[in-house]
Amino acid sequence: MKIADNIETFNSLLRRRGFIWGPSPEIYGGLAGFYSYGPAGKALKNNILSKFRLELRAFGFSEVECPQILPEIVWEASGHLERFIDPVFRCQECETMLRADKFLQEQLPNTTIEGLTFEEMEALALSHKLRCPKCDTPLGKIEEYNLMLKTSVGNGTTAYLRPETATTTYLLFNRLNQDARRQYPIKVFQYGKAYRNEISPRQLVLRMRAFDQFEIQLFIGKEQEYNYEEYDEFNQEELPLLDWQTQEKNVLVPNRISLKQAIKTNVLKKPAFAYCLFLGYYLTSKLGFPDELIRLRQHSPQEMAHYADDAWDLEINTKQFGWVEICGIHDRTDYDLKRHGQFSKQNFKIAMGTDQKLKEIPQILEIAFGPDRIIYTLLESNFCVEDERIILKIEPSIAPNLVAVFPLVKNKEKIFNLAKKVHRLLLDSRISSFFDSAGSIGKRYRRQDELGTPYCITIDYDSLDDNTVTIRHRDTMEQKRVLISEILEYINKN
Amino acid sequence: MKIADNIETFNSLLRRRGFIWGPSPEIYGGLAGFYSYGPAGKALKNNILSKFRLELRAFGFSEVECPQILPEIVWEASGHLERFIDPVFRCQECETMLRADKFLQEQLPNTTIEGLTFEEMEALALSHKLRCPKCDTPLGKIEEYNLMLKTSVGNGTTAYLRPETATTTYLLFNRLNQDARRQYPIKVFQYGKAYRNEISPRQLVLRMRAFDQFEIQLFIGKEQEYNYEEYDEFNQEELPLLDWQTQEKNVLVPNRISLKQAIKTNVLKKPAFAYCLFLGYYLTSKLGFPDELIRLRQHSPQEMAHYADDAWDLEINTKQFGWVEICGIHDRTDYDLKRHGQFSKQNFKIAMGTDQKLKEIPQILEIAFGPDRIIYTLLESNFCVEDERIILKIEPSIAPNLVAVFPLVKNKEKIFNLAKKVHRLLLDSRISSFFDSAGSIGKRYRRQDELGTPYCITIDYDSLDDNTVTIRHRDTMEQKRVLISEILEYINKN
Repeated sequence: MKIADNIETFNSLLRRRGFIWGPSPEIYGGLAGFYSYGPAGKALKNNILSKFRLELRAFGFSEVECPQILPEIVWEASGHLERFIDPVFRCQECETMLRADKFLQEQLPNTTIEGLTFEEMEALALSHKLRCPKCDTPLGKIEEYNLMLKTSVGNGTTAYLRPETATTTYLLFNRLNQDARRQYPIKVFQYGKAYRNEISPRQLVLRMRAFDQFEIQLFIGKEQEYNYEEYDEFNQEELPLLDWQTQEKNVLVPNRISLKQAIKTNVLKKPAFAYCLFLGYYLTSKLGFPDELIRLRQHSPQEMAHYADDAWDLEINTKQFGWVEICGIHDRTDYDLKRHGQFSKQNFKIAMGTDQKLKEIPQILEIAFGPDRIIYTLLESNFCVEDERIILKIEPSIAPNLVAVFPLVKNKEKIFNLAKKVHRLLLDSRISSFFDSAGSIGKRYRRQDELGTPYCITIDYDSLDDNTVTIRHRDTMEQKRVLISEILEYINKN
Repeated sequence: MKIADNIETFNSLLRRRGFIWGPSPEIYGGLAGFYSYGPAGKALKNNILSKFRLELRAFGFSEVECPQILPEIVWEASGHLERFIDPVFRCQECETMLRADKFLQEQLPNTTIEGLTFEEMEALALSHKLRCPKCDTPLGKIEEYNLMLKTSVGNGTTAYLRPETATTTYLLFNRLNQDARRQYPIKVFQYGKAYRNEISPRQLVLRMRAFDQFEIQLFIGKEQEYNYEEYDEFNQEELPLLDWQTQEKNVLVPNRISLKQAIKTNVLKKPAFAYCLFLGYYLTSKLGFPDELIRLRQHSPQEMAHYADDAWDLEINTKQFGWVEICGIHDRTDYDLKRHGQFSKQNFKIAMGTDQKLKEIPQILEIAFGPDRIIYTLLESNFCVEDERIILKIEPSIAPNLVAVFPLVKNKEKIFNLAKKVHRLLLDSRISSFFDSAGSIGKRYRRQDELGTPYCITIDYDSLDDNTVTIRHRDTMEQKRVLISEILEYINKN
């Protein structure tokens, strides 16, 4: 049967090969917006995280881990209690919830909904006699629907599941400041779960109710934002930038310019923020995305969060969902620490510049990745069908398995044991090897192609005589005969 | 000032060096039972997890990741809704909550409280005229207090934050069975957060409301439990076992015997379960716990969970909290899949034995680690004060930094740049290097001793001439002069 090179083949591969399963729990029908990672998806995620951690250590970042549940006052201070809301129509008859702005836009495609007040949206629904799509009751008032998941801790303390990791990192500021011994910027990141109680979760793992965040923060002084050492090191680097003025002219192709040019032409204001854009792009490029699928798109002043001074989305062009944001780079100013200082009665003013008498609340620059979105976009962009086989051309260093080891036949003890020995040898050298003795060699190759395994090693009868194995390459299907003692060198070289 | 070699020095080190901070969020007074990991604690945790993952891959395990929030029916099926409860007195006057059994045991030390019914406990409180310790009101009825954190998802769907990862792994059984292509046992693990709404969180990170679990599962047939290949490979391995009959004789010292002896003397029944005890012990021993601090303690039939056929705690002897369970090894029988099969109307019966006509619901053997407890016990047992310095003698392969690199002086550009080059060289070889140029060399050494860094490398004036550096050993303070080109070899050899 011919394999169709289309998105259905890809979507089925995600499940069939154990990348992503859900909505979970599947055996109970699934709860919308919750997914599980199977062995292949989880291995890929671990490898991406390890790579990010290794790179960020070299850039001088450290990592922290904070709770996912925090008391109400934190979210009052952060602004999430007041602002992290969607407008909804809740049907008075059948209780169906509709995201008001999205629903109105669908029903009235020629009307501009963005920017309308609740009253204006209610008036529109009334004048167009819009009704509940489920039970046909006329729509009424709009409610505020807070997207945070609420719970009660201990003897009735109200708390919320964090909608972002960022805030929880900021709450550590005093500790981090002490730990960094007043060397600025303070560079820190946090990886972990965040939660948004979406009314309509959709697009697989792109808009979930529980999702991963990998959020990188710089606490920095105002002076240093404009006079930033690492900017000098990287200012020749070129990024695919699409600023908001260009977007207003309906140009959607990014312009590849250096950080230096971007600063010079006022596309970017602050060298330290330019460095953050570079860092986001650099980490992304390490994962093996084709360059033409990446762009950095600036938010227009209307699109930007109320506290932000500048914001860019790092986007990947997908077949199934168009441009998808996998990372947001935000100049959050001193908004967060100012608010938490007020609410917790802490003094976060410190001397960060050349004038040690000038005390200021640190500015925060943020590079916020969504690992689930990285995984989806990476798999989609690495997927291909060639010569009747499905291949995931994943960058070798993050493939779920770097190597698979096969005994040619299962029931010859000597071959089986030698294959196990080779497998163990690879594992001992920290190479992610997968052992497989089930089924024909052809089927085993196909399986590994679909998992994106760069090398398959087969141990056969000849191996017993001459200590050689066959190494087969994923992308070319080329086969080489290599001495067992030279496998490591061969793989490291290729 | 003389450094006191006591638990206060240790507890203060945990905070001062960025291992553990909390209760979080500290600037808002903290919510009991929630902690944060600082840079050193998080690096240590990552290294432990990496080591476990690497080892488990070699043993043929794969990893999955499931949601932390699941609908009510899951916890009805698992039994947590009915059984995961504590008995509490809630004061009718001031609403103070008291864990009934613990409170009674404290007040009536000579009475056996364990095993009493709610009515019997209420009667005891009444007859002894026990009162609320806060407002002196007589205690009344006992309530059931469920330890799961509750939330509401979407348009009012009741859901709970998982009290264990295990159940969420079991829900994937159909998928895992397909992925494993009917090769049994199915070996899988999951790492992630779990939640217990403790009435009185205590003992630092040992009894938190949000904590890590690293739970390893084997889905296995009944026949294979008694005829298990990997048991044959490891049955000569010796473990420090303390069975429940021995405990009843008030002997609390474990008996070091081989798996084979344990099976022969009926301390253990199933070879596959013996293998699980070995695996738990093996992973623990890789972390560098002193052998005399480890024991495996069997649950008595009264102590065991209602569904378990056998259960052992892997415990570490601590100064501050006595014997602490860091891992539980459980024979969960077919309880879990049987219940979820009933509630989800799935048929989990499969042929796993030699008779392919005999279909059975798989048995589950579990090795459940608590990473937070590993970290606490590991730090405490690696802590020492010697010659007026604090040292964490952490096993080098999991130390937060394997190496620290110091330029002797900060303001000599050539020395600074060469030090940066050495740092980069180490990072490129995947060695966790930390760069530090602030303060005197003596202070920098002390700091790294307190972080458990095995090697400190100093670049000085001589380095510029002869390309050598000083490598200083954490435990002995011995210093060696080594060529830059030979640093990697030196560190790998030592």
